[in-house]
Amino acid sequence: MAPHGWNEEDLIGNLLAPLAGEGAYGLRDDAASVRVAPGYELVVTCDTLVASIHFFPDDPPASIAHKALAVNVSDLAAKGAVPRGYLLSLALPATVERTWLEAFVAGLGEAGRRFGCPLLGGDTTAIPGPLCITVSAFGEVRHGRMVPRTGVRAGDVIGVTGTIGDAALGLLLRQAQERPAWDRLALEERDYLLDRYLYPAPRISMIGVLLDYANAAMDVSDGLIGDLSKMLHVSGVAGRLDLGFVPLSSAARTATGAETALQECVFTGGDDYEILFSVPQNDWDAVKAAAMKAGTEVTRIGSAVAGEGLVCVDQNGNVVTFGRGSYVHRSG
Amino acid sequence: MAPHGWNEEDLIGNLLAPLAGEGAYGLRDDAASVRVAPGYELVVTCDTLVASIHFFPDDPPASIAHKALAVNVSDLAAKGAVPRGYLLSLALPATVERTWLEAFVAGLGEAGRRFGCPLLGGDTTAIPGPLCITVSAFGEVRHGRMVPRTGVRAGDVIGVTGTIGDAALGLLLRQAQERPAWDRLALEERDYLLDRYLYPAPRISMIGVLLDYANAAMDVSDGLIGDLSKMLHVSGVAGRLDLGFVPLSSAARTATGAETALQECVFTGGDDYEILFSVPQNDWDAVKAAAMKAGTEVTRIGSAVAGEGLVCVDQNGNVVTFGRGSYVHRSG
Repeated sequence: MAPHGWNEEDLIGNLLAPLAGEGAYGLRDDAASVRVAPGYELVVTCDTLVASIHFFPDDPPASIAHKALAVNVSDLAAKGAVPRGYLLSLALPATVERTWLEAFVAGLGEAGRRFGCPLLGGDTTAIPGPLCITVSAFGEVRHGRMVPRTGVRAGDVIGVTGTIGDAALGLLLRQAQERPAWDRLALEERDYLLDRYLYPAPRISMIGVLLDYANAAMDVSDGLIGDLSKMLHVSGVAGRLDLGFVPLSSAARTATGAETALQECVFTGGDDYEILFSVPQNDWDAVKAAAMKAGTEVTRIGSAVAGEGLVCVDQNGNVVTFGRGSYVHRSG
Repeated sequence: MAPHGWNEEDLIGNLLAPLAGEGAYGLRDDAASVRVAPGYELVVTCDTLVASIHFFPDDPPASIAHKALAVNVSDLAAKGAVPRGYLLSLALPATVERTWLEAFVAGLGEAGRRFGCPLLGGDTTAIPGPLCITVSAFGEVRHGRMVPRTGVRAGDVIGVTGTIGDAALGLLLRQAQERPAWDRLALEERDYLLDRYLYPAPRISMIGVLLDYANAAMDVSDGLIGDLSKMLHVSGVAGRLDLGFVPLSSAARTATGAETALQECVFTGGDDYEILFSVPQNDWDAVKAAAMKAGTEVTRIGSAVAGEGLVCVDQNGNVVTFGRGSYVHRSG
C-alpha cells in the first residue's frame, strides 16, 4: 500500500524499480526469490534507522539511504557473508517530498552498486511520526562457516580494522557545538570526520580474511568498548584492551590531543562500522598481511584470557574505566 | 541497541530469545543463518505495521504481534513458499510497558508455532513516534517455482479462498460506529468478524495446491477488487469479476443484507489475507478437490480474458463500478 499522497505506481514503479536486482521481479510481486549456491547458506540481518535517533532529519537524503544499507552490509561482512540483496521498508511521514525521495533513491542505488547488493523488494507505508527505515540484508556463506560473535577463545588476539572514533567525533561536529578541538582541525579533517559519520564504509574487503582466520567477529556499531565487552561476554571469556594501541586517524589524534575529554567519546562512541575480531595469536602476522593485501589496515588492540569482563589499560599500564561502556544513538 | 528505558539483555535475552529458532544463535549474534535444501530457493518478503495506520494502538498486543507475522506468512503462502523463519524489527515508543511487551511476545510465539515460522533475529530501537513493527519472512520453494503475481493467462479461471470482506466489516465494528447492520448480527457473528480483523489466518494449507495448479497468485490485503485489478494489470490481461459469486460468510451476508452500502466495503475493503489465484479452466475441478482435501474452500469468482482492465458484474449481469478500487489502511 502506498503512503498517503503517494501513488504506489510512481513510488515503486518509477523510483524504486530501477534498483531491483535478479529475483526481484521488477518489484511487481509481493516477494522476491533468492538462490543460494550449492554448499552455501544465507546470512540474514536487519537494522532499523529512525529519524532523530539514528540520523538527523536534515542529513543529506543520500547519506541516510547509504547508512541504512551500509549498517546492514557491515553486519554481513563481519559474519563473512558476501552481500546478495536486501529488502527495504520505508515508513514515510507526510512531510517527505518527491525531490527528497529522488535523492534518497539515488543514494540507495549508489550504495547498492558499491556494495554489490541490489534491492529485492520491500514495503512502503505512511507513518504519523518520524521517517523509519528498515533494511533486511542477505549474504551468502559456506555451510556452517558464518563467523560468530560468540567464538572468542582465551589466548586470541583482538584486532580491529581501520580507525576508531571518527564517526563519534563526526556526530559531535554534526551537532555543531563549538569546541576548542574543532579549531585545531583543518577543514579537510572536519570533512573527513563528518564523512565517516554520514557515509560509513562496510568492510566488505575483510570477508575473505575473516573466513580464513577469525574465531569471532562483529562490527563496531555501538562503540568499541561496549561492543568488545559484548563479544567477550557472549564468548564466555575475559579480555584486555590496550587503549594506546587503538588506531586513530590523524583527525581524531588532533581532536583528542586538543581535548583529552574527547578520548571517552572515541573509545565508547558508536557508528564506526569497523570490524572487531579475534584470531589465534599465531595467525596475527598472516592476518595483518592478508588484510593489507585486501586493502585494509588491521591493528592488534588487545587479547582474550580466561575469566570474565574487560579491562582497559592506558599507555602507562593504568586501568581506566569509562562512565558509559556503550553508546546510545541520539542524533537529534 | 536497546530502546530507551529498556535493558537490551532483558528485552532480547529474556523476552525474545525463547522464540529463537535454528540458525538464530539464541539471538546473541548480529545475524542469523538460513539453510536452504538443495534444489530450493528462498522467498523473501517484508511488511511494516504502524500503530494508528495498520492497527489500533489499544488492540490486544497478542493480536498486533499475530498480525505482524501473519501478513508476511500470507505473502509466502501465496507464493507457494513454506515458511522457514523471520526477522523482527521493533521500534518502541517510550510509552510501551513491560506487561504490554510480554503479551506481544506471547502472541508472537503462539503465531510462530502455528505458522511453523520461528524468530531468527532482528533489531530493537526507540522511536519518538508510533509503534512500528517490520517483519521480514523467509520461505522455501523449489528453484523457479515461486508462484508469480504476473502469471495470469487469458482463459484462466479466477478463484479465491475462504470468504471475503469479513476483516473489513470487523474493522468497521472495531471502530464501534453504531449501524443498523450491527443490530442484526448475533454476538458470535460480531466476534467472528472482529476475530477475522484481529487474527488473520494465512492460508498455509494452500501452498501445495498453488504449486500444483496456479498460474498466478497473491494474497488479498488491500481489497478484492483492487488486488485483482493489480494482478490482472501486471499480467497484461483483462478480467471479469462476478460479484454474486464472491464468497461471503453468513455474518457478512447478514450485514450486507441489512445495509447494501456495506457491499462496497466487502468488495473493496482490505485485510482478508485470503488467496486470490488464477488456474487453467480445465483444472478448476481438480483445484477445488485438492483445496478441499487441504481443508480450504475455494470459489470461482471470475475469469481472465485478453485485453486490459477489470469488469465487475452483479447477479443481474449489470456492470458495477465502485468509488474506490483499493483499500487505504486507516484504523485509528
